[in-house]
Amino acid sequence: MERFVFGADLGGTTVKLGLCREDGTLLEKREIPTRTEHAGEGILPDIAAQVAALCRDCLGDGRELAGIGLGVPGVVMADGFVQPCVNLGGWGGFDAAGELARMCSVPARALNDANAATLGELWLGGGAGAQNMVFVTLGTGVGGGVVVERRLLAGAHGSGGEIGHIKLYGGEGRLCGCGSHGCLERYASATAIAEMASQRLRQDGAPSALRGVEPVTAKDVMDCAKAGDALALDVVESFADDLGRGLAAIACVCDPEVFVLGGGVSKAGEFLLDQVRRAYLRYAFSTTRQARFGLAKLGNDAGILGCAYYALTHLPAGDRF
Amino acid sequence: MERFVFGADLGGTTVKLGLCREDGTLLEKREIPTRTEHAGEGILPDIAAQVAALCRDCLGDGRELAGIGLGVPGVVMADGFVQPCVNLGGWGGFDAAGELARMCSVPARALNDANAATLGELWLGGGAGAQNMVFVTLGTGVGGGVVVERRLLAGAHGSGGEIGHIKLYGGEGRLCGCGSHGCLERYASATAIAEMASQRLRQDGAPSALRGVEPVTAKDVMDCAKAGDALALDVVESFADDLGRGLAAIACVCDPEVFVLGGGVSKAGEFLLDQVRRAYLRYAFSTTRQARFGLAKLGNDAGILGCAYYALTHLPAGDRF
Repeated sequence: MERFVFGADLGGTTVKLGLCREDGTLLEKREIPTRTEHAGEGILPDIAAQVAALCRDCLGDGRELAGIGLGVPGVVMADGFVQPCVNLGGWGGFDAAGELARMCSVPARALNDANAATLGELWLGGGAGAQNMVFVTLGTGVGGGVVVERRLLAGAHGSGGEIGHIKLYGGEGRLCGCGSHGCLERYASATAIAEMASQRLRQDGAPSALRGVEPVTAKDVMDCAKAGDALALDVVESFADDLGRGLAAIACVCDPEVFVLGGGVSKAGEFLLDQVRRAYLRYAFSTTRQARFGLAKLGNDAGILGCAYYALTHLPAGDRF
Repeated sequence: MERFVFGADLGGTTVKLGLCREDGTLLEKREIPTRTEHAGEGILPDIAAQVAALCRDCLGDGRELAGIGLGVPGVVMADGFVQPCVNLGGWGGFDAAGELARMCSVPARALNDANAATLGELWLGGGAGAQNMVFVTLGTGVGGGVVVERRLLAGAHGSGGEIGHIKLYGGEGRLCGCGSHGCLERYASATAIAEMASQRLRQDGAPSALRGVEPVTAKDVMDCAKAGDALALDVVESFADDLGRGLAAIACVCDPEVFVLGGGVSKAGEFLLDQVRRAYLRYAFSTTRQARFGLAKLGNDAGILGCAYYALTHLPAGDRF
């Protein structure tokens, strides 16, 4: 019998929800606001209500939901315990999937949101067909997920794939939001690209198409670099060099067949891939040099689909289907 | 029926061999010279002869060998192909385990030697009972192995756990034997400790118990640091800081529950663990700070036992036992 699964990708602003077939076809998707007030007490009831509504609208005829995957913006421990989430006003500190399962009377499993996007891209996106993959999100920060033999590397304390906090530099590095210095995401995120360009514009008088743009964004920098602007190219090369060195370090640990780049910066497309691949080869060891580079393909659906895939591949053994 | 497995740990100078029960008890072990002449054509026949001899001496009574694990000092691809091994005069470039299996009429599997030692320590040594572990050998170089949910992370190109070549520094770093600059093993190996101490002794006139020792070894530096020698302590703190930052980067990828330190430098014991743990905590992210640190326990037997364990856990499905 065909199985249906539900993905709920819980973010700081909205929850992205979708009901899909086991081949990944989305029957319907929705987006609702994340209500973080009152310690987020409405979050799970809101999701449960959407689960009920979508199943009522799209299933029926004896077709039932097999499971729910819940992506959360924080650390999920091996036993399902969700650490309090900074971006959700501290929501968490309990077994969120267990609670959601009770509300919906369906098995549910929680996972980290970056890991969910990783699984989505592995299932149906830039990593389709790969056995070993590293997903890298280049956005406000740098996030990631590691896949080994088609399984997520969750880690002993739920921090597998937290690649944005690799210390690329020692104590003299840039201060990071995590309280440490020299983290990869202070050199390789969209935020870092914009900051580096702004700083260069202030510090030297070189002509640049970026001069006068206020505020400068990572997209501006990428666009100008593509057009040959020297200052923008300098910034992109510095970003790519640091990212390439970080990815080469990751490859010395888990040796993936493909790196899939996602997040806002990945909209720079082939130009980004070329820059990062070239920098990677400066630092990559031995056979890890054979790793391929690809772009994320699923955009905002990656999280929903990855949650659904996680549910599908983690159904309890006693599952009736 | 009880199963017996054979471990053969092939090194540049000797092959360490052992026959053991499935609980890891060694019935007998031996060490024979590695004959690298004539492109190492005698290596596999020598091992096959030892397999036959040990089985004849220790088994009998209808007790048969279930499998052989072969550790090699080089990269082993997923299909069993062994890349040519630099330390064996280029021996390799073929399916070594397949060849050994044909010679011995018993299933055989090859794996990288650092991975073999990792599995040995996971099975019966410093990582016993762990699900997720990183083994770090601090010797002439820095080697390692990564275990995820009790399985070796081999990687897509056989380079999983090649942690000695994480580029801790960019282009300005020390030159490594691999041809790149800034590799972890140029800062955190026994070789690096001895070199750093020698350089300090040449460069400044500070008093030190190491002065006049020729040549200075990593053991000398560790012993003097334990005794409070300021120059030696400086060197050890620099070594530990770099190693701690490297291990913190590894934890951002695979988040182990325990780091097991082996190799010659690990003989410094608790003093080493204290230094490395303190440095690790300067750089470790979030819940990866909970990782434990332990010492390798099996010494030279780690390789033999790890090879045997690999054979035991990778017997073909159609295996008669």
